[in-house]
Amino acid sequence: MKARVIVTLKNGVLDPQGKAIEGALSSLGVPGVASVRQGKVFDVELSLADKEAAREALTAACEKLLANTVIENFHIEL
Amino acid sequence: MKARVIVTLKNGVLDPQGKAIEGALSSLGVPGVASVRQGKVFDVELSLADKEAAREALTAACEKLLANTVIENFHIEL
Repeated sequence: MKARVIVTLKNGVLDPQGKAIEGALSSLGVPGVASVRQGKVFDVELSLADKEAAREALTAACEKLLANTVIENFHIEL
Repeated sequence: MKARVIVTLKNGVLDPQGKAIEGALSSLGVPGVASVRQGKVFDVELSLADKEAAREALTAACEKLLANTVIENFHIEL
């Protein structure tokens, strides 16, 4: 089973990398970009057939390793 | 307008970061993870109202800065 996990910074958490990208895009002449926030995406291949078990395993993976839940949200797409 | 850009490695491109995550998840006892590939996600706020103009601006942003199109694919969600 394939799954995608998206980890993004919580609202209010500063994102200097996103700010740098904003500045670079404006220097490069890309129009209309008001703000950018960067996150991470993980494409996971699972050997589990059951959707609920997969969601549980991915939640454990996010809480233990993939996301810092103090400053980041995670979203699991199955 | 809000948009999300997802940048992932092309098939066949080695992903040592993903491999390290696979190993760490198995050490942490997360079950059923067969493979992991890591990518980047950009949440972009645009000041453009027109969808086509937004897609054009984001394609330019990806080609110029956000993605290395030799080894990465990008996908734009509007």
